[in-house]
Amino acid sequence: MMGRKFVNGVEGGSVSVDDRGLQYGDGLFETMGATNGRVRRFQSHMERLTEGCHRLGMPPPPVDLIETDCLRALEGFGAAVVKLTLTRGPGPRAYPPPVEPSPTRIVVSTAQQVSESEAARPLILRVCETRLGRNPRLAGIKHLNRLEQVLAGAELREPGVDEGLMRSTDDRVVCATAANVFLVRGGQLLTPQISDCGVAGVMREVVLHLAQRLGIQVETGDYTLDDLARADECFLTNSVRGIRPVGCIVGVNDFRPGAMTARLRDAVETADE
Amino acid sequence: MMGRKFVNGVEGGSVSVDDRGLQYGDGLFETMGATNGRVRRFQSHMERLTEGCHRLGMPPPPVDLIETDCLRALEGFGAAVVKLTLTRGPGPRAYPPPVEPSPTRIVVSTAQQVSESEAARPLILRVCETRLGRNPRLAGIKHLNRLEQVLAGAELREPGVDEGLMRSTDDRVVCATAANVFLVRGGQLLTPQISDCGVAGVMREVVLHLAQRLGIQVETGDYTLDDLARADECFLTNSVRGIRPVGCIVGVNDFRPGAMTARLRDAVETADE
Repeated sequence: MMGRKFVNGVEGGSVSVDDRGLQYGDGLFETMGATNGRVRRFQSHMERLTEGCHRLGMPPPPVDLIETDCLRALEGFGAAVVKLTLTRGPGPRAYPPPVEPSPTRIVVSTAQQVSESEAARPLILRVCETRLGRNPRLAGIKHLNRLEQVLAGAELREPGVDEGLMRSTDDRVVCATAANVFLVRGGQLLTPQISDCGVAGVMREVVLHLAQRLGIQVETGDYTLDDLARADECFLTNSVRGIRPVGCIVGVNDFRPGAMTARLRDAVETADE
Repeated sequence: MMGRKFVNGVEGGSVSVDDRGLQYGDGLFETMGATNGRVRRFQSHMERLTEGCHRLGMPPPPVDLIETDCLRALEGFGAAVVKLTLTRGPGPRAYPPPVEPSPTRIVVSTAQQVSESEAARPLILRVCETRLGRNPRLAGIKHLNRLEQVLAGAELREPGVDEGLMRSTDDRVVCATAANVFLVRGGQLLTPQISDCGVAGVMREVVLHLAQRLGIQVETGDYTLDDLARADECFLTNSVRGIRPVGCIVGVNDFRPGAMTARLRDAVETADE
């Protein structure tokens, strides 16, 4: 696997054991798709990162430095993924954050080519037993406390399963481990609200925006497995992989390729060009 | 501040940016007090760490290697704190953990002398606004997802405030940011149950055990700020600092030095010898 790593603008792959990102998961990340050295939706990712910094009480990110790091990390790559991690930097052993932190900026690129047939293949999902705890204080932002996703991911070892659906502790369907989820029912587009758990994905925002422009009726609300069982279509969204149709949620529902999913995929691809 | 750092048994202070501890907070830690090169209650800490590994699906910790690291890190120190971090080690960008992980073992020592008068000084506590989300899957163990404690810690910047009390999202008093909490009411010892959030502290277990041996009536249950307002005594427990009396919970209650707190402090000190 080809790729490059930069820490605070310097090529290299290690951080101090005192880094608060390691000590407490005190930081944020963004996983971004890139084509021919250019990060897709860079501005949207930086906006979410800035919102995350605001919520965690960290200094806003140095967007120009991040942009330079990404350009260097992607040099010579065609299709790639670039992951940015921004932590509150090193600190002594103590939960209260330093008043004037020196954040650590980590940029890691990985070459990644997804074939068109793979991108269109309907996914097989499993409903995970691991739940998402509810805390509005941490909902929406892409912070580094991801043990719930890790434990849910550990449930996905059986062959043929592509992703896992996660529910909140109060039984609402919230997201997949690394994607947001959308349903289509009676011509309406539905997606879980991200108010007390889950990540507000950049691609989720893109899809909500495009749907509005296309005159599709959209509802964000609370949905359960029963809603998935009654849905006509289902798809996942993720910055790197875009819109991926869901073919089956094991034990819940099977879906055929749907018109709304195809229409939104086309719209995203057109918007990307 | 004097101290030494070891990563997988080698003196040094950095880890790979690919480490899952940094990427996802995928790991555990223990903060242990030490006297003259010897870790206090080492066995109890290793038992909690082992339980944490079991819960996260990680290989059990290499206790003999950890012991060797600690001995080396504490060489030449009198009173010290030694922090052990055990992560699931490096891995590619993906939530599902590697089937055969190579955990990273980090041991960091810090010289730390606490005077007897400081150890006996009643603490001033503030009730934090930041809540603890509830997820039984992660409760009790000392994992690396600690953003809630970080955000609560950021609320404690006013001078004179020693610690912060944290409540669950459903208003139960659970713990302090870095300690467990006990109340005394009508001669009975009360402490919040750790079932859906909070850490089951090693010193909390020691106190519960000693209280039982001393014939003190103990109740673990659900308590609110009202219970604190009606309590006769209050104290915090923490592996490094032992039992610390609480003198004031701002806006809730003031406490005088209490007989039960003193009795249990004596019992812990005797047990330590």
